[in-house]
Amino acid sequence: MAEFADIGQLILDDLNTEYPEIYSLNERNPEGHAHTGTELNWKLNHLEAAIYLQEGENNDKFFTHPASHEALPGYQIAHNTWLYVLDLFASVSILLLAACERPAVDLFMLPVGVHGSLEILMLLLLPLELGIRMTWLGWRVLIRHPRTVIKTSMLLIMLVEAITVICRQTNHFRVTRALRPIFLLNTHYCRGVRRIARQTLQSLPPIIDMLVLLLFIMLIFSILGFYLFSTIPANPYFASLKDSFVSLFILLTTANYPDVMMPAYSTNQFSALFFITYLSIELYFVMNLFLAVVYDTFSGFEKEKLKNLFLHKREGCRRAFKLLVTKEDPHCIRLDSFMSLLAHFRPKLKRKEGYLMFKALNTQKNGKLSLEEFYNIYNICDLAWKPKSMVDKLWSADFCHPFNTYFEKLNKFVTWKWFEIFVYLMIFANFISMIVETIQVNMQGGPVSRNNFTISDVSIAFICIYTLEVILKVMGKGPVEYFTNPWDIFDFLVTMASLAGIIGETVADSFYYIIILRPLRLLRLFKIKKRYRDVLGTFFMLIWRLSSLVVMIILVYYFFAIIAMEMFRNSDLTNCCKNTSVEANYAHSNTSAGFYYLNNFSNIFISGVTLFELTVVNNWYVIMEGYAHGFSEWTRIYFMTFYIVMMVVMNIVVAFVLELFLFRIAYRRTMKLEDIDDHLKLSVDLPLSADELEMCENGNQELNENHIISQCNTTDIPVRVAGPFLTPFMYRGQRSRSKQDFSLRMYKEEVEEWIQEDQKERERIIQDLELLRRHSTRHQ
Amino acid sequence: MAEFADIGQLILDDLNTEYPEIYSLNERNPEGHAHTGTELNWKLNHLEAAIYLQEGENNDKFFTHPASHEALPGYQIAHNTWLYVLDLFASVSILLLAACERPAVDLFMLPVGVHGSLEILMLLLLPLELGIRMTWLGWRVLIRHPRTVIKTSMLLIMLVEAITVICRQTNHFRVTRALRPIFLLNTHYCRGVRRIARQTLQSLPPIIDMLVLLLFIMLIFSILGFYLFSTIPANPYFASLKDSFVSLFILLTTANYPDVMMPAYSTNQFSALFFITYLSIELYFVMNLFLAVVYDTFSGFEKEKLKNLFLHKREGCRRAFKLLVTKEDPHCIRLDSFMSLLAHFRPKLKRKEGYLMFKALNTQKNGKLSLEEFYNIYNICDLAWKPKSMVDKLWSADFCHPFNTYFEKLNKFVTWKWFEIFVYLMIFANFISMIVETIQVNMQGGPVSRNNFTISDVSIAFICIYTLEVILKVMGKGPVEYFTNPWDIFDFLVTMASLAGIIGETVADSFYYIIILRPLRLLRLFKIKKRYRDVLGTFFMLIWRLSSLVVMIILVYYFFAIIAMEMFRNSDLTNCCKNTSVEANYAHSNTSAGFYYLNNFSNIFISGVTLFELTVVNNWYVIMEGYAHGFSEWTRIYFMTFYIVMMVVMNIVVAFVLELFLFRIAYRRTMKLEDIDDHLKLSVDLPLSADELEMCENGNQELNENHIISQCNTTDIPVRVAGPFLTPFMYRGQRSRSKQDFSLRMYKEEVEEWIQEDQKERERIIQDLELLRRHSTRHQ
Repeated sequence: MAEFADIGQLILDDLNTEYPEIYSLNERNPEGHAHTGTELNWKLNHLEAAIYLQEGENNDKFFTHPASHEALPGYQIAHNTWLYVLDLFASVSILLLAACERPAVDLFMLPVGVHGSLEILMLLLLPLELGIRMTWLGWRVLIRHPRTVIKTSMLLIMLVEAITVICRQTNHFRVTRALRPIFLLNTHYCRGVRRIARQTLQSLPPIIDMLVLLLFIMLIFSILGFYLFSTIPANPYFASLKDSFVSLFILLTTANYPDVMMPAYSTNQFSALFFITYLSIELYFVMNLFLAVVYDTFSGFEKEKLKNLFLHKREGCRRAFKLLVTKEDPHCIRLDSFMSLLAHFRPKLKRKEGYLMFKALNTQKNGKLSLEEFYNIYNICDLAWKPKSMVDKLWSADFCHPFNTYFEKLNKFVTWKWFEIFVYLMIFANFISMIVETIQVNMQGGPVSRNNFTISDVSIAFICIYTLEVILKVMGKGPVEYFTNPWDIFDFLVTMASLAGIIGETVADSFYYIIILRPLRLLRLFKIKKRYRDVLGTFFMLIWRLSSLVVMIILVYYFFAIIAMEMFRNSDLTNCCKNTSVEANYAHSNTSAGFYYLNNFSNIFISGVTLFELTVVNNWYVIMEGYAHGFSEWTRIYFMTFYIVMMVVMNIVVAFVLELFLFRIAYRRTMKLEDIDDHLKLSVDLPLSADELEMCENGNQELNENHIISQCNTTDIPVRVAGPFLTPFMYRGQRSRSKQDFSLRMYKEEVEEWIQEDQKERERIIQDLELLRRHSTRHQ
Repeated sequence: MAEFADIGQLILDDLNTEYPEIYSLNERNPEGHAHTGTELNWKLNHLEAAIYLQEGENNDKFFTHPASHEALPGYQIAHNTWLYVLDLFASVSILLLAACERPAVDLFMLPVGVHGSLEILMLLLLPLELGIRMTWLGWRVLIRHPRTVIKTSMLLIMLVEAITVICRQTNHFRVTRALRPIFLLNTHYCRGVRRIARQTLQSLPPIIDMLVLLLFIMLIFSILGFYLFSTIPANPYFASLKDSFVSLFILLTTANYPDVMMPAYSTNQFSALFFITYLSIELYFVMNLFLAVVYDTFSGFEKEKLKNLFLHKREGCRRAFKLLVTKEDPHCIRLDSFMSLLAHFRPKLKRKEGYLMFKALNTQKNGKLSLEEFYNIYNICDLAWKPKSMVDKLWSADFCHPFNTYFEKLNKFVTWKWFEIFVYLMIFANFISMIVETIQVNMQGGPVSRNNFTISDVSIAFICIYTLEVILKVMGKGPVEYFTNPWDIFDFLVTMASLAGIIGETVADSFYYIIILRPLRLLRLFKIKKRYRDVLGTFFMLIWRLSSLVVMIILVYYFFAIIAMEMFRNSDLTNCCKNTSVEANYAHSNTSAGFYYLNNFSNIFISGVTLFELTVVNNWYVIMEGYAHGFSEWTRIYFMTFYIVMMVVMNIVVAFVLELFLFRIAYRRTMKLEDIDDHLKLSVDLPLSADELEMCENGNQELNENHIISQCNTTDIPVRVAGPFLTPFMYRGQRSRSKQDFSLRMYKEEVEEWIQEDQKERERIIQDLELLRRHSTRHQ
C-alpha cells in the first residue's frame, strides 16, 4: 500500500508541477484577453506551449520539461540550432582526432601537445549543453536520465586521460578512445542513429538466443568433426578440438570452403556429407531463421516506436492546448493565442502563413480551434504555402507577347513523349559507343596507359546533346518546376558532372580521375522502367534513414578500429606466418606479393578498410590467421567478436532494406496506387478572400477570425461554381510525406485503436488519482 | 460477335457435358431412393461425386473430368496409389540411371546394353498413366494441357535416343538427359515440388528486372574499373574490359575479395573507395532489394495459391453436391447418399466414422446436409475418431488393482517438474563430460588415432540413464501417448540412436563411424527454451514443404550436372593452369596438394558435390578459372549461369524460410497464443447415444438420421449438465492442422471476401449464359 501511495505521489507531483500553476495563471487573467498586467505571464504561457509542442516533436521526455516559467528561456537556449551545431562539431572533431593521434595518418600527424589541447578544448565544449540543461533540471533529473549519466562519466574519464597525455607528453594505452562515438550518438542530429542503436539493443535478447543456438550446433559439429577427421594425416583443420571449432566457425562464413573439406574429401568421398549437412543446417537454415528473428523483432519495434511517437505528440498537443485556452472558454484556442504560439514555435513563419495554418486546422470553420483540430498541428506546421495560381501556371505565361507562346510551345515539346524517347535512345547509343571505345582500347594491344583514354569526338557530341536537353527543359518547364522535380535534378546533376568531367579532362591531365564520371551518364537509363524508378525512389526516399544506419556502422567500425590500433600497435605482418596455410598471402618480395600485409591497423582509415574487408567476410580468416600467428592466438577473439557483431548489424541492414521496400510495396497495394510518387507530397488547398489577404499583409491591421466565421455562414465556398474572380487567391500548402505519415495512413485502423486505448488509460489514471486524493485527504 | 458466341458455346458445351445428363438421371429416378432399376446409375453418380471431391482435393482441373459415366472406372485406375507408386518408381529410376551410364560411378557401372534396355523399360512404364487418362480424355485435352504435351514429346525424344544408344552400343553426346527431372516433376507425389517450380517461374519477370539492373550496374563499374586500374602493372584483374567484368562478377559473390583490390590498393589507398562503393551498392543494397522482390512476389503467389485452392475445393464440393441430391429435395443430401459417397471417396472409413462425420457436418441437426454444411467436408474427412474416454484416461487405468495405482504414481513422477529438470541436468553434464573427454584426447599428444576414441564408462552410464528415462516414460505415459507426442518421439529416436551407437562401437571396430551419433544426444537440450522449441517446431512442421524445396534443388543440380558431365567428359585438371593465380589450387605432387582437381564432374555424385561447392560460392571462381584455362574460356558462361540460377534459388530458400517463420510468429500474435503447439491439432468432440452406437456397429441395421433429429428436438445435448452417464459415448476426432488450415484461419476476413467475389462472379456468368441462350434460340 505504501508503495502504491508512493507511485501515486510521484504522479501527483508530476501533475502539480505542470498543471495547477498554469491554471492559476489563467485564473489571474479573468478577462480572457491579454491586455492586463499579466501579459508577460501570457507570453510565457505561449512560450511554454511552444516548448511542449517542440518536446512532442523531438520525442523529449516530458519530465525534462522546465518546471517553472523562469527556466523557459534556458530551455530555448538549450534547443538552439547554434548549440546543436556546436555540439555536433565538437563530437565529430573528437572522433576525427583519431587521425592525428599516434598511430596517425602521416599527413595529419600532430604533436602530442597540440592534439591533447584540442581534445581538452572539445571535451570542454561538450558539457555546455548539459550545463544549460542543468539550470532548469537540477541534479535529480540528471540521475534519472541514463544517457546523461553515461555521457558525464565518459567526459570525466576522458578529461583525466587527456590531461595525463599532455602532462606526460606521450600517448599511453588508451582504449577508452573507442567510446568516443557515444558523444556523437548523444547529439541532436543523430537521433535517427540513436533510435536504430536503441532498437538494436532491444532486439538483442532473441538475437542472443539464436547466437547461442548457432554456437551450440557448431560445438556439436566440432566434436563430431574432431572424431571423424582428426585421424587423417596432414589435415590442419581438425587437428584438435580448438582447430575444429575455429574451422567450423570460419566455415559458417563459408570463407574456407571448400579448402577445409578437401583433405577429408580426398581420403573419403563420403565426408562431403558432413560438410553439406553442416552448411545446410547452419548456413541455410539457422542463419535464415536468424534473419527472420531479426526482421521480426526489428519491424515489431518499428511499429511500437510509431505508436509511442504518435501518442507522445498527442500528449504534447494536449499539454500545449491547456496552456493556450482561457478560463471562460476552456475548450477552444482563439486566433491570437495561436499566432502568439506560432511566434515561438515556428518563429520564421509569416503572418499570412500562420493565418493559413489556422484556417486549415479549423475544419469546423467556427473561428476557434478545438483540441481535436489542434491535434493536427504537426501535419500542418511544415507546409510551404504558395499561391496556387503560381503552381498551375506556366512560368513563362507572364512574358511579353511573342515570347510566351514560344515558351509554351517549347514546354509542349520537352514534355512530348517522343522527345523523351529520343533522349533515351541517345543515352543508349552513348552506352554502346562507350563500350565500343573501351574495347578498341583493348584491341590496340600493348600495355594500357593513360594516353589511351583521351576523349573522343563522339563523347563530346553526346555531352553537347545532353547539355542542350537540360537547357531546353529548364527553359520549357521553368527553373522552379525543373529544380523541384527530383528526376530532373538527377538528370541535371549527372549532366553537370559529365560536363565538368569533360572540361576537366580537356584542361589538364591531372584531372585524370574525372573520367570516373563518364559512365555516370548511363545512370539516366534507370528512369525507363517502373521497377527501377521504384528502386531508385526507395533509395532516395530513405536516404535519410539509410544514412543513420551508415553512421551507426561507422561508429561500430570506429570502436573496433581504436581497439585494434591500440592492440596491434607495433605489429608488422610482412613475410609473417611461415609454414602456415596463409604464408603466400603475406609474402612480400621482388618476385611475388600477397599484399595481405597491407590489411593492417596502422591508422584509422586503413583500419576502416581492413574492417570493411572483415565485414565482407570472404578471406577474413587470412587476416585473422595472420594476427593469430604473427601476434597472439588470443586475437582470434577480437576477430570472431567483430564477425558476430557485424553479422548482427548486417542482418539488421538486410531487415532494414527489406522492411522499407516491402512497406513501400504494401503501401502501394493497400492504397491501390499505380505510382507511389503521386503520394509523396501532402498538399492542402485553401482560399483566401481579398479582405483576408489585405488583413494578413497589412501589418497594422489586427488579425481576427470573423472572416472564417462569415465565410462559413454565407456559403460553402463555391470555388468551382463562382469562378476564380470571386475567390481569386487560392493557396496551396505542400510538404513531402515522411515515413511516419505513410505508416500512419497505412495502419489507420490500428491508430484509431491506439487513440482509444490511450483515452481509456488516461481515464483510468485520473480515476486512480481521484481515489488516491480522496484517500489522502481522509487520512490527513 | 461470332467469337463471343464461340466462347459462349464452349462454356455451354462444358456445362452440357456435366450437368444436364446428371439432372436427367435424377429425373429418371423420381422416387428419390435408390431402389429401382436405376440403382447402377445412382452408384455411378456417387462415384462421380467422389471423383469431383478428389479432383478438388488434388487441385486437378475440372476439364479433365471424365465426360461420361463409362469413363469413371478409368479415372479411378489412373488415380490409384499403385499407379502413382509405379510412376514415381519409373521416374526416379530414370534419374538414377545417370549413375550407371558413362561417366558412371565405378561401383554401379553397367554395360551400354543393360542400362539402355533399363531406360527403354522405364520410358515405356511412364506413359502408362497417360494412356489410361487418354481413354476418357481423348486427344483434345492432351493438347490443352501443356505439361502433358511436354512430357509426351520428351518421352518420344528420349525413346529415340535410347534406341540409338542400344543400336550403336555406345553413348553419344546426350544433353537431353538433363531434362529427365521433368518426369519426376510430373508424378503425383511431387505436386509440392511442382508448385514451387511454378511459383518460381511466375516470379521470374520481376527477378529478371532486378538481374538486369544488377548486371547493368556491374557493367558501368567494369568500364570504370578498366579506366581506373588497367594502367597499373601486374594487375590481372582489370587488364581488359572482359577481365574487369569477370572480376566484378566474382566480386559480387565476394569470392575474390580483398585479393581483387590489393594490387590497386597497394598503388593508391584511395582505390579502396571504388570497391567499397561497388560492394555497398551491389551487395548490400541491390542484392537485398533482390531478396525483397523475391520475398514479396513469392509470398504474394502463396496467397493467390491459397485462394485458388480454396475456391477450387468449393467448386468440387458444389459439383459433387449436385450429384448427391435428389429431385424432390435439391438442396439437401441425405445420410444414405452421403455414406455411399464416402464408400468411394474414403473407402477405408468404417460405418461409425462415416456416421460421425455426417453428424459433425450437420450443424443444423436436421438430419440432412445443406450445401453450406457440405463445404466443410474437407475439414472433417481426415479426422481420426476415437472414444474420448480413451483420450483422457490413463492407459493403465484398466489394469488390475495394485498395478493401476503404481502406474498412476509413475505417471505423476515422469510428468513431475523436477524429473524433467534432472534429465536436463544429466544431458548438460553429459555435454560437459564429452567436451572434457575430447580435450583429454588432445592432451595425450602425438597423432590421434581411432583407438583414442574408445567409449568411456561415463558415457555408458549416461546412456543407461537415458534408456531408463525412456522406459519410465513409456510405462508412465503409456505407449500410445508417448509415441504420438513429437517431442517424446524425438527423445526416443535420439536415445535409440545413442544406444545403437554404443552397442555398435562395442561390438565391432568397423562400426567406427557410429561415433557420429554420440553428440546427437545433446540435441535434446533444444527443448529447454521456448524459442528453440519454436525453431525446431517450425522445422518439423514444415519438413514436408522444405523437402519439396530440397527436391527442386536436387533436380536443378541434376540438370546442371548432366550438362557438365557431357561437356567436360575428358578433362582432367590435375596440375593445370600453370602461371595463373589458381596454379597452387590444382597442384598435385608428393610434397604439396591443392586438391581442387578433385572438384570435377567425373560422375553424378561427385558432380553434385562440386555443384554444392559452387552453391556455397566461396572460391567458386577457382573451379571456374580451372575450367576456363584448362578447357575453354566459354565455360565461364556455364558457371556464371549456374551462379545466377542458384542465386535466385537461394533467395527463394531464404524467402521461403522467412515466410514460414514469420507466418508462424504472426499467427501466434494474431491468435494471441502463448504456444502454437496447442493449435497444431484440430479436434472435434461429438456425443453418440447408445442407440446410435448400436446402429453403427450392427452391420444389419440400416443407418438413418432419426437419432440426429430426435436429439436436436429433445435437448441441446447437455453433456456437462447431465454427466457422463446419460451420453456415455463421447467421440473425439483429431487431425493435425496443415499450413493451409492455419492460413485460412489467419486470413479469415479475406476468405469471406473471396467467397463473396466468387459468388458474384458465378452469378455474372450465369446471367451471361442466360442472355446468350436467349440470343441463340432467337437466331435459330
